[in-house]
Amino acid sequence: MPGNAFGNLFKITTWGESHGPAIGVVIDGCPAGLRLTEREIQKELDRRKPGQSKITTERKEADKVQILSGVFEGITTGTPISLMVRNTDKRSKDYEKIKNLYRPGHADYTYDAKYGLRDYRGGGRASARETVGRVAAYAIAKKIIPKIKFSAKLISPTAKEIEAVKKQGDSIGGLIECTIKNVPTGLGSPVFNKLDARLAQAMLSIPGTKGFEVGSGFKSVKMKGSENNDEFILKKGKVVTKTNNAGGILGGISNGMDIIFRVAFKPTATIFKKQQTITKSGKKTTLQMSGRHDPCVLPRAVPIVEAMAALVLADEYLIQQSIKI
Amino acid sequence: MPGNAFGNLFKITTWGESHGPAIGVVIDGCPAGLRLTEREIQKELDRRKPGQSKITTERKEADKVQILSGVFEGITTGTPISLMVRNTDKRSKDYEKIKNLYRPGHADYTYDAKYGLRDYRGGGRASARETVGRVAAYAIAKKIIPKIKFSAKLISPTAKEIEAVKKQGDSIGGLIECTIKNVPTGLGSPVFNKLDARLAQAMLSIPGTKGFEVGSGFKSVKMKGSENNDEFILKKGKVVTKTNNAGGILGGISNGMDIIFRVAFKPTATIFKKQQTITKSGKKTTLQMSGRHDPCVLPRAVPIVEAMAALVLADEYLIQQSIKI
Amino acid sequence: MPGNAFGNLFKITTWGESHGPAIGVVIDGCPAGLRLTEREIQKELDRRKPGQSKITTERKEADKVQILSGVFEGITTGTPISLMVRNTDKRSKDYEKIKNLYRPGHADYTYDAKYGLRDYRGGGRASARETVGRVAAYAIAKKIIPKIKFSAKLISPTAKEIEAVKKQGDSIGGLIECTIKNVPTGLGSPVFNKLDARLAQAMLSIPGTKGFEVGSGFKSVKMKGSENNDEFILKKGKVVTKTNNAGGILGGISNGMDIIFRVAFKPTATIFKKQQTITKSGKKTTLQMSGRHDPCVLPRAVPIVEAMAALVLADEYLIQQSIKI
Amino acid sequence: MPGNAFGNLFKITTWGESHGPAIGVVIDGCPAGLRLTEREIQKELDRRKPGQSKITTERKEADKVQILSGVFEGITTGTPISLMVRNTDKRSKDYEKIKNLYRPGHADYTYDAKYGLRDYRGGGRASARETVGRVAAYAIAKKIIPKIKFSAKLISPTAKEIEAVKKQGDSIGGLIECTIKNVPTGLGSPVFNKLDARLAQAMLSIPGTKGFEVGSGFKSVKMKGSENNDEFILKKGKVVTKTNNAGGILGGISNGMDIIFRVAFKPTATIFKKQQTITKSGKKTTLQMSGRHDPCVLPRAVPIVEAMAALVLADEYLIQQSIKI
Repeated sequence: MPGNAFGNLFKITTWGESHGPAIGVVIDGCPAGLRLTEREIQKELDRRKPGQSKITTERKEADKVQILSGVFEGITTGTPISLMVRNTDKRSKDYEKIKNLYRPGHADYTYDAKYGLRDYRGGGRASARETVGRVAAYAIAKKIIPKIKFSAKLISPTAKEIEAVKKQGDSIGGLIECTIKNVPTGLGSPVFNKLDARLAQAMLSIPGTKGFEVGSGFKSVKMKGSENNDEFILKKGKVVTKTNNAGGILGGISNGMDIIFRVAFKPTATIFKKQQTITKSGKKTTLQMSGRHDPCVLPRAVPIVEAMAALVLADEYLIQQSIKI
Repeated sequence: MPGNAFGNLFKITTWGESHGPAIGVVIDGCPAGLRLTEREIQKELDRRKPGQSKITTERKEADKVQILSGVFEGITTGTPISLMVRNTDKRSKDYEKIKNLYRPGHADYTYDAKYGLRDYRGGGRASARETVGRVAAYAIAKKIIPKIKFSAKLISPTAKEIEAVKKQGDSIGGLIECTIKNVPTGLGSPVFNKLDARLAQAMLSIPGTKGFEVGSGFKSVKMKGSENNDEFILKKGKVVTKTNNAGGILGGISNGMDIIFRVAFKPTATIFKKQQTITKSGKKTTLQMSGRHDPCVLPRAVPIVEAMAALVLADEYLIQQSIKI
Repeated sequence: MPGNAFGNLFKITTWGESHGPAIGVVIDGCPAGLRLTEREIQKELDRRKPGQSKITTERKEADKVQILSGVFEGITTGTPISLMVRNTDKRSKDYEKIKNLYRPGHADYTYDAKYGLRDYRGGGRASARETVGRVAAYAIAKKIIPKIKFSAKLISPTAKEIEAVKKQGDSIGGLIECTIKNVPTGLGSPVFNKLDARLAQAMLSIPGTKGFEVGSGFKSVKMKGSENNDEFILKKGKVVTKTNNAGGILGGISNGMDIIFRVAFKPTATIFKKQQTITKSGKKTTLQMSGRHDPCVLPRAVPIVEAMAALVLADEYLIQQSIKI
Repeated sequence: MPGNAFGNLFKITTWGESHGPAIGVVIDGCPAGLRLTEREIQKELDRRKPGQSKITTERKEADKVQILSGVFEGITTGTPISLMVRNTDKRSKDYEKIKNLYRPGHADYTYDAKYGLRDYRGGGRASARETVGRVAAYAIAKKIIPKIKFSAKLISPTAKEIEAVKKQGDSIGGLIECTIKNVPTGLGSPVFNKLDARLAQAMLSIPGTKGFEVGSGFKSVKMKGSENNDEFILKKGKVVTKTNNAGGILGGISNGMDIIFRVAFKPTATIFKKQQTITKSGKKTTLQMSGRHDPCVLPRAVPIVEAMAALVLADEYLIQQSIKI
C-alpha cells in the first residue's frame, strides 16, 4: 500500500527522486540460476535514455547501472537483486523558481496536499525518471519468460507532429500499442486479478497515462455480440480463435492468442507557453517555463510499456507455476 | 494472488459460483462503530437484481442477504463481516448442452486450460453473479466515506438499441461514466498504486469490460499540453482547476476535483444466433443458445461500477488516515 | 493487516463470532483437481469438537460443516472454497453478567480499548471457537502436501492434573510438541519469512499461546556450538544430520530432517474462583464465573497446532513450486 | 512471499550479501515530515558494529550509511527511503575452502538445496550482516512512535562465559529479554496478526534464534489460572493489571502494560573445533575453521531485537491510526 512495490512473486520496489543522489530498484523473487550481466540491463536502459535525438529531452545522463546484490559469478542466486543508477546531471538550481508554485498538469499540488511538502527538483518522485528502475527490472523479467515477446510501438503522434509542437513551445499526447506474442494459455486469474485488470493497473501507473483498452477496447461499446465474439477453431492441433477481439484474454485468463492492448498518454505537462496558476500561499501567478523537456514522452515510453507488461506476465507465470501440483 | 480478494486495509474476499448453494463476501478491515443493517445492504443488491425490466435477464432471484458475523446489536465490531446470499433459482439442467464445448466470448476455454476442469453451470465463478458480493460490500464501504458520492450512469446504448438487438437474438456493448464528488485531496499514492491505476484495475476486474479512461482519456492522444493542462485557480478559498482534463487525479493523487472516468463494456457473450465453435475434444460444432440472458449487461453494471470505485476510495481513505501522525 | 487472513498462495480468511449465526472460512488458492468431501473436513472438525470427554467443555455442538463453493462434482475447481458451520448451541444469556466488566486473562478489555465496543457473548471473535475455520482448512491443506505428516501431542499436563484443577474450579496450562515428517528440503525462505519464523507466528496466533521453540529451542541458551551444531552425514544416499538440534530448519529453510517444535499454552482464563476486576466504567467488582468451560484447552488444541503447521507448509510448498523454472 | 520484505504500512525490504559490493534497505511507507539525518541512523548502526571489543568479531568495517532517497532538506518526504552501506572489508579468499562443503549449523546446505547454488562468501545472504538494514530502519521506526521505548538486554551468557568458550575455540548461546514501555492500548489485531504473533515472527527471523516467549511464556505450562490471570485494577485513573503474566498483550492486542518478551539464541555455528561434514558431491570430510568470528552473537544482537520490535510496533501504530474514523 505504501505504493512503491509492484508484483507478488516477482516483486519490484523502486526508489529515488529525479535529483537525489541515485535511483534504483530492488527485485525480490527472481528465481536462482539465471545468467545476468550489467550489460544486459544497460541495453534496456539505453532504450529509454534521454538525449538520443532531437525529439527527446536533451538532458544527458550516463545512466550506468550497477548490480549491488543477488548475482554471484554472473548467476542470480534467488536473493534480492539491487540495482542502482547514479544521478549525474542534476541542475537543481533550474527548479528554484517553481519551488513555491503549482505547475499545471504536474503533481506539485497533490504531493503538497498529501505530504505537506515535496522535493520540487525535477518533479522529485513524480518524475518519469522513476521508471528507470522498472526498465532495469524488465531485463530480468524477460529471463523468466524467455519465449514470450513484448513489442510496443508508437501509433501516434508522428515525429513530424512532435517537431511541430516543439516549435510552438507546446507538447502533444499519443498512443502506444503493445503486442505480446507466444503467451501460454492459463496466465492470470478470475475476479480481481484478471490479467487485463493487472495490465490496466500497470499501464495507468506509468506517468502521463490516461487510458487503457484491450482487444476491441472502446470499439466494443458499439459492437454486437455476433460481431465481437471470437469463434473457436482448431489450427494445426491448437485451439485458436478466428478473430481476436478479446485481445488474448478471456475471463481474465490468457487464451494463447496474442495479447494486444493500447495505452493513451496525455501531452507532457511541461510546456514553454505562459500559464496561469497559483502559489503555495494561494496567490495568482504566471508561469513561463524554459529549459530541457520532451515535447512528447511517447518515444521514450515504449520500453516502459513493455517493461510493465513483462513484470505482470513474469509474476503471473510464477503464480501459474505454483498451482501445478 | 489467488485473486479473489481486493483491497488492503478495507479488504473484501468474494466466493461462490452462479449455481452453487450460495455466494458471498467476507469484508475484513471494516472499522468498528458503524451502524449496519441487512436492509441497507439489500437496497444496494436490489439495484443489480435481475428480473426488474424487459431489458434485463428474466432469472428471478430473491437475493436475500444475511449478515453472518461482524455486527453486534446493529453495530460493526471491527471483526470480519460475512455476508451470504443463497442461490435459489438454479436451473442447472439448462447447461448440460454446453458442458463439453467452448462458448465464444466466454471463459469456458480459459478456465479449462488453467484448471483442467470447470463448473460449467451458468459460467460458474466467471458469472456476473459473482459481483453480488462486491455490491453488498459497497453498502459498507460507503459508510467509511459518507461524504463522498458515487454516481455512475449509462452513456450508451439507449434502451431502444437494447430492444432492437434483443429482437435479433443479439447483444450490444456499452459505456458507463462514473463521477465521484466531494473527494478529499490526497487520496492515492505515487508510482504503482496511483489512484487512477487502482481504479483501472478495479474496473477491468468487472466481467465484460474492455477499457478504462480517466478525465480527458483517449482524447488526450490528440491534445496539446496548452489545451490539456488544467490551470490552478482559487475559488472560495479552495484550490481548484479551471478545467478538469485530469479527471480529479494528478500524479496518482486526488486533487479535490470530481473524479471522472469511463468504462467500456463488450456485448454480452451469450447470443441466440448460431455460432461455430469446438468441443473439449477438439471437434467442430455449432452452438445455438436459448434461455434467459441480458442482451446488454450495462443497466445492471451501473451499481457494480460504483461499488468498485467505492471499494478503492474507502481503502485509500483508510491508508491516508494511517500516515497522519 | 486487518488480521483475519493467513497465507500467501494458499490463503485462508476466517470469520465469525462464538455466538453469532455461524462461523466459517474462505480458502483462496487451493489448486484445482483435488477430491474433497464434507466428510473429510468433518473428520478433522470432530477432533476439536467439545463435549467428547470429561475433561473438555460440555458445550454440545453438531459442528456440521457445509461446502458452499469451490467444489464441483466432488473436485476442487481452483476457485475459493467457502466452508460454514452454524452455531447451534448459543446460550447468550449466560453472558449478560460479564457484559460490563473485564474478565482477567481474557481479551474483553483490549477489544473495548481498540474498537470501543465488543461482542461479549462467549468471547466473540476472541473465542477459541474461531479456530473451527482453521481446522476445516487443515483438511484441505493436507491434500496439497499429502506425503508430509503432522503429528502433535500433549507433553503436559496429564489428565490427572487436569481433573485435579477441575475439582478446584481452577485451570492449568500445558505444552504441545509437534513433529512434521517427510518434509522436502528447500521449503521456506531467507530473512523475514524463514520457515521457523512463519511457524512461530502461526503458533502464537492460536488463542492462549505464550511461547514457541524449534529444535533445541530454549535449551540452546546454555549450549556450546560444538554440542549444538548438527554434523552432516550421508545415509542411504541422502544428506542427513547426526543430531537434530536445528529442528529440521537451517537458515529458515527446511533441511529434510523432521521439523520439531513446541508450543506453550497458558491456563484457560475462565476459572470458577472468585477474582477481582473492574467494570467498564472503572468500578471495582468481584467476578465469580460458573457454567461450562475447559479447565485445560490442550487436548482440543492438538489438531489446531497441526492445522496451523499444515497451513504454513502448504503455502510454502506452493511458493517453492513457483520458482522451479 | 519472496521473503525479503517486512511490514505492511511501514515496510522494509533488505538486500545484499555479506561480501557483495554493498548492503541496504528500502523503507516504504515512512510518513512525511519527520526530521532524519545520516548521523541518527549511524548511531544505531554503531551499536551493532563489529570490532568494538574483545568478545565480538574483529572484522573492521566503517559501516557508513548513505541516504539515497526519500529525504529532502533533512525531512522525510513520504517517498521510499533508500539506505546503503558499502562492504569495505571483504576477504573473500578466506572462504575458498568452504566453497564445496556444508558447514554444520550454517545455511550452506539448505541454500544449495533450495536454489541450486549459493554465494558462499561469508554466508552470503544468510550472514548476520543482512541485519544492518534492519537496524538502520530502526532509527526511522522510532520516529513514528517516539514515546514508545525499546530496551533489550542480555540475560545470559556473562562476558566471562563468552571468554571461556572463546579460549576453547567454541561458542555459546544466550538469552535476550526485551521490555517495551509506554505502549498505547489497542495495538495489534485479533486472530492471525496478534501483536505477539507478529513479534514471534519478527524475532525468529533474526539469524540464530530458536525460541520466543512473551510474559509468563514457557512457565505458563505449569501455572494455574488463578496464578496466571492478571487482575484488573484502576491506578491513577488508568486501567492496569496487578501482575503482568500476559506480557502486555491480551487476545493479540496491547493492554497498556509493558510488553515483555524473551528470545533464545543458539551458539554461533562457526567454531574452531574440528567437525565432520560432507562435501557438495557427498563425500565425507573434516572441517577446521580459522579466522575472525564471534564466539557469541548476543552482545551485537541486542539492537537487532529492539529494531525488529520497533518495526512491528511502528507498523501496528500506523494500522491503528487507519481505523480511527
